[in-house]
Amino acid sequence: MSRQPLRALGLSTGKKARLHRILHTFGLANGTALFLPYDQGLEHGPRDFFANPAAGDPRYIAKLAVEGGFNGIAVQIGLAEKFYWDFAGEVPLILKLNGKTEIPPDGSALSPLNASVEEAVRLGADAVGYTLYVGTPAQTEDFAQYQVVRRDAERWGMPLIVWAYPRGSAIADKGGKNSFYAVDYAARTASELGADMVKVNFPNPAKRTGVPAPYDGDYSTQDAIGAVVRSANRSMLLVSGGEKAGDEAMLEKARQSMEAGATGFIFGRNVWQRERVESLRFVAHLREILAKYPV
Amino acid sequence: MSRQPLRALGLSTGKKARLHRILHTFGLANGTALFLPYDQGLEHGPRDFFANPAAGDPRYIAKLAVEGGFNGIAVQIGLAEKFYWDFAGEVPLILKLNGKTEIPPDGSALSPLNASVEEAVRLGADAVGYTLYVGTPAQTEDFAQYQVVRRDAERWGMPLIVWAYPRGSAIADKGGKNSFYAVDYAARTASELGADMVKVNFPNPAKRTGVPAPYDGDYSTQDAIGAVVRSANRSMLLVSGGEKAGDEAMLEKARQSMEAGATGFIFGRNVWQRERVESLRFVAHLREILAKYPV
Amino acid sequence: MSRQPLRALGLSTGKKARLHRILHTFGLANGTALFLPYDQGLEHGPRDFFANPAAGDPRYIAKLAVEGGFNGIAVQIGLAEKFYWDFAGEVPLILKLNGKTEIPPDGSALSPLNASVEEAVRLGADAVGYTLYVGTPAQTEDFAQYQVVRRDAERWGMPLIVWAYPRGSAIADKGGKNSFYAVDYAARTASELGADMVKVNFPNPAKRTGVPAPYDGDYSTQDAIGAVVRSANRSMLLVSGGEKAGDEAMLEKARQSMEAGATGFIFGRNVWQRERVESLRFVAHLREILAKYPV
Amino acid sequence: MSRQPLRALGLSTGKKARLHRILHTFGLANGTALFLPYDQGLEHGPRDFFANPAAGDPRYIAKLAVEGGFNGIAVQIGLAEKFYWDFAGEVPLILKLNGKTEIPPDGSALSPLNASVEEAVRLGADAVGYTLYVGTPAQTEDFAQYQVVRRDAERWGMPLIVWAYPRGSAIADKGGKNSFYAVDYAARTASELGADMVKVNFPNPAKRTGVPAPYDGDYSTQDAIGAVVRSANRSMLLVSGGEKAGDEAMLEKARQSMEAGATGFIFGRNVWQRERVESLRFVAHLREILAKYPV
Amino acid sequence: MSRQPLRALGLSTGKKARLHRILHTFGLANGTALFLPYDQGLEHGPRDFFANPAAGDPRYIAKLAVEGGFNGIAVQIGLAEKFYWDFAGEVPLILKLNGKTEIPPDGSALSPLNASVEEAVRLGADAVGYTLYVGTPAQTEDFAQYQVVRRDAERWGMPLIVWAYPRGSAIADKGGKNSFYAVDYAARTASELGADMVKVNFPNPAKRTGVPAPYDGDYSTQDAIGAVVRSANRSMLLVSGGEKAGDEAMLEKARQSMEAGATGFIFGRNVWQRERVESLRFVAHLREILAKYPV
Repeated sequence: MSRQPLRALGLSTGKKARLHRILHTFGLANGTALFLPYDQGLEHGPRDFFANPAAGDPRYIAKLAVEGGFNGIAVQIGLAEKFYWDFAGEVPLILKLNGKTEIPPDGSALSPLNASVEEAVRLGADAVGYTLYVGTPAQTEDFAQYQVVRRDAERWGMPLIVWAYPRGSAIADKGGKNSFYAVDYAARTASELGADMVKVNFPNPAKRTGVPAPYDGDYSTQDAIGAVVRSANRSMLLVSGGEKAGDEAMLEKARQSMEAGATGFIFGRNVWQRERVESLRFVAHLREILAKYPV
Repeated sequence: MSRQPLRALGLSTGKKARLHRILHTFGLANGTALFLPYDQGLEHGPRDFFANPAAGDPRYIAKLAVEGGFNGIAVQIGLAEKFYWDFAGEVPLILKLNGKTEIPPDGSALSPLNASVEEAVRLGADAVGYTLYVGTPAQTEDFAQYQVVRRDAERWGMPLIVWAYPRGSAIADKGGKNSFYAVDYAARTASELGADMVKVNFPNPAKRTGVPAPYDGDYSTQDAIGAVVRSANRSMLLVSGGEKAGDEAMLEKARQSMEAGATGFIFGRNVWQRERVESLRFVAHLREILAKYPV
Repeated sequence: MSRQPLRALGLSTGKKARLHRILHTFGLANGTALFLPYDQGLEHGPRDFFANPAAGDPRYIAKLAVEGGFNGIAVQIGLAEKFYWDFAGEVPLILKLNGKTEIPPDGSALSPLNASVEEAVRLGADAVGYTLYVGTPAQTEDFAQYQVVRRDAERWGMPLIVWAYPRGSAIADKGGKNSFYAVDYAARTASELGADMVKVNFPNPAKRTGVPAPYDGDYSTQDAIGAVVRSANRSMLLVSGGEKAGDEAMLEKARQSMEAGATGFIFGRNVWQRERVESLRFVAHLREILAKYPV
Repeated sequence: MSRQPLRALGLSTGKKARLHRILHTFGLANGTALFLPYDQGLEHGPRDFFANPAAGDPRYIAKLAVEGGFNGIAVQIGLAEKFYWDFAGEVPLILKLNGKTEIPPDGSALSPLNASVEEAVRLGADAVGYTLYVGTPAQTEDFAQYQVVRRDAERWGMPLIVWAYPRGSAIADKGGKNSFYAVDYAARTASELGADMVKVNFPNPAKRTGVPAPYDGDYSTQDAIGAVVRSANRSMLLVSGGEKAGDEAMLEKARQSMEAGATGFIFGRNVWQRERVESLRFVAHLREILAKYPV
Repeated sequence: MSRQPLRALGLSTGKKARLHRILHTFGLANGTALFLPYDQGLEHGPRDFFANPAAGDPRYIAKLAVEGGFNGIAVQIGLAEKFYWDFAGEVPLILKLNGKTEIPPDGSALSPLNASVEEAVRLGADAVGYTLYVGTPAQTEDFAQYQVVRRDAERWGMPLIVWAYPRGSAIADKGGKNSFYAVDYAARTASELGADMVKVNFPNPAKRTGVPAPYDGDYSTQDAIGAVVRSANRSMLLVSGGEKAGDEAMLEKARQSMEAGATGFIFGRNVWQRERVESLRFVAHLREILAKYPV
């Protein structure tokens, strides 16, 4: 499926203006995206920074985002307030609106709001992010707080990126959070609920234990990611890196994603859990892939 | 890590003005801080005052704060309303916005709001305090009420000090509330969520039972407090005294904290659970340490 | 401890005006207080009126308050709306803002709001009352609704009287609701949270089973009530009568309370669960005690 | 006409409570009123204080009100905020809500609002005052801002005293501001618009030039003031002192007013534009008159 | 008349805290004040800076305020937003809330609001300023917008400094804006309407043409400034420098003002319409005078 240009995505003027800035002024300026997420200090705690202690410093990360030619950096409100001024406008800000620690039990996963779309406007952000735990038993609360975000994003012309994460015991019973079934459903859910971009994990169609028909069939990863892109339809698809993994495996997933019609990647730990020079080298590989898919 | 001056901390004009007042007009006026917390009457009840009955009188404590050259006194709204007028402007007021008694079970710890940032403004306070129970099963409610406080603090230019306290059964299972893991995560959480100052307990890296990797390694206390300061990054770090302990042990922790880049101390019971003259003598030792770390 | 005059209690203009009216215009007009609480019809039901059926009539009670020279009468909104017009201004009205029946289980005691400070203003009340169940597992909800009352009372210059009642299973396990520990903690909690007056039960230091140190020591009732007055500090202390008891025992508690620095009494059933003439005779004894403690 | 008791005046509970306090707790406590107005510093400037410089000090005046047994003191918000705390509750506060300087031209007299009923509640006031310029060409603006005051006063149970002043060129052409016609019309206007008390100048029926029929007839002052009291009907009538005049003339007007059914006097300059001892002597004469008219 | 300490001025907690900061932490810290007003660029235009072009740079002026030991600097919102961050907390900010150009005719002088008390709070200001044109034909509009400022200042505990300026044709006809009559009335008006500090021009009792009795008598300047201080009563008096004049004349007025009980000076053009070294020399003379009047 070939990717659609912005004008074909049913966007309001403000959302189109901000997304044009992200996709056609920054990075490769060719309609693709490479985002740097940096909220792991909240989600996992500082343990993520032991591999490369420099990465614990938000300033180091922001500089890396600028130097690496990223299309945006996604952070929680605290870091945005204290660090973004130094780089304001040099790299688009994606204000991540919700988040939580990993300490308490996660049975009924819900990511509480820590900031608002209004604050994103005030800080000059070009998008907001929201983690939707698709399938969580706390779905009602999740949808309720999501609704406010979506409506505010619509009101202020602010692009909304949904971190569409399958989560909870029901998901675990049906193939797990990376199954084709779960990822596909998550992408569609975000689309149905109005995401402008959807961030998903790369689907693993081999995870078939417990997944409902017809996801228990035999699918290639290329088939799967293609289906996911179609499920997201006019919500642009971003593929998440997740935990740091082997570079070649990551790049192959990246290639398949773009081939399927994804808009780009949102890679954090795979980027900054290594020395700066290595980070930039890995980023260069990602950019080579993105360069092949202008729109 | 050398401490950063106020102008390097990403502060708005109002927060900078108020923090300059606290750090460069009061106390040693050298950018360090010594705060006197006085909400134990609510948190623990009057039993904390039996060691020195005079300390049960808020007026005695306020005078001690003035005479001891503290950079601020932290109290609940009731005492602020009835006692601060007498000392208004003589020592900065930190209005502690939430708090609770220790009587009911603490499984899902949550510290309810008792006052607002607007009331702090009305009373001429120079900062507000909020207890965030990092890791509590009541995280969603905690983050929700915290969010309002943070936003109001931003709106009014009011510095926000977060009492970042690991708490709850999950914490107990992972090394306890003073483990390096727990304190480090708490400091980072406060930073991600926008604290201007973070109050933590001094980390004990020897508490390794159940802590996740890589915190189960062998760390010195100096290493640990250094990491905590870095996790707090632009949120200034305050080290809490906790229960009254031996003076030399407290002072050694104080020295290590300042050496690591902390901004100062927030010591209550260690200060006022003794005769006034002894209190001032202990404070003098703390000031000697602070005097070595101007910024 | 000698009682402080109104000007030394850190009161706003409106609160001082209304309290001056209560304490220096009504009753003995000497700064002491004798209040008549009349919300037992809601709290316990009409069973409380069988001893003296006339007392079931709010008009009978209001006349008794006027004739007995009380400093105020405390009622729920319904009786205030329907009966206070007849006596408006003849005896100060204390609008009791929350209250509940005793019918449902009381494990997580919480007294719901039935009226607002604004309604108290509209009715010309001179104070409002709030029951805070110190130590209840429903502490979070209790503090939340209390906070609104406190803020409104501050906003409108309306004195706030807190019925500080230890309650709940944790209290039962630690010596019960009348233990020195529980009453002392309750008085302090009300003070920390901004009560202008605190109503407590007379502490019973003999209740030591399960109370935390140092309350498990040997204290006289005079010591105990003295400590409670100090814990309340600038919140004036009112001693509750509770269930009807022997007159001499009640009067002795009253004497000890005033000697300790209390401001007065809030006696209901001990007053009106007897014939009118007997009520007035008992009130005369109380007034004799109060007359010895002008301020 | 015999004066009606409070219960016959169609008052809400709050207004009745506050008026009972003013009329039956303070002053002679017999239902009559003697108020001390003190806004001349704004209305006329400090020139009014040259006759007795001590009177320029609001504290002197407040003490005089307490010592003289006044039923209330009427001041603007600035003096209320800074001085009433010292006397809170010792004499009722009447917050004068509007007022102006005499400097600019007065053709279209309008007295702008300087404070609100809500502020009166906050300060513990027992009534509010509003100057209505009956007959002014700015009648529309005047009625508009009056309406808000009246509605707020109703909402909060706050008695509303209307300074009913005929004013403007049309008034000047029709007998002037003290004519029977003008005063009678002013009293009725205040009554029609909901005043609880009306303050008027003593009518002068000899001013007949230009007054409409039937006011151009031959009336005694006793007839005139009687008619004015009836025009005010359930709005209680207060007679103003105006500029300092001969004592005997003032006292005679006072006698006629009470005989006609007025509730009392509101005398400022006639009281305090003389030495303190003389002020109290004059007040004593007024009280002798009031004592003859209990209700 | 001896100056009163802050605790005797009827201030709320917040106002007392902020004024204590201004008067007892900055400048001579002895309760006196020397303020630097810097809104002439709006009020008169850049022509005021030709005498010393460096003074056109707000940064130059802010440094002068810090170096000269001023108790505060008064500026419009634009300069506060862009320049105060650099000096936040080093010198108190007084946000001047209204102001206008001198270009349009001034017959019905009215100074429009340009900012709010809320913005002053946000910027960490310690006071706000408002120009009240006492006697202007636009009195109604002036009082209306002033009322909002006063109420907000009360609500937020923000000290309110009133620039009390007689202005308009009526003033011109009655002796002009510097007459004893006009200045005295202006001071009283600000006091009646709730100013915490009043800024006036030094009164000139020789201006007697057209002034009402008793101001047409023979008064010394010392008598006049003494009366003005008394008219301001609990509103602290600040004497304005006005246009640059001879130093000795200015210093003599300054001495007489302090002798009369003024709190200090607010001198702009007299300070900065000369070379920096000369500015500081003149300031040193003012400080010598202030040093003699501690409170």
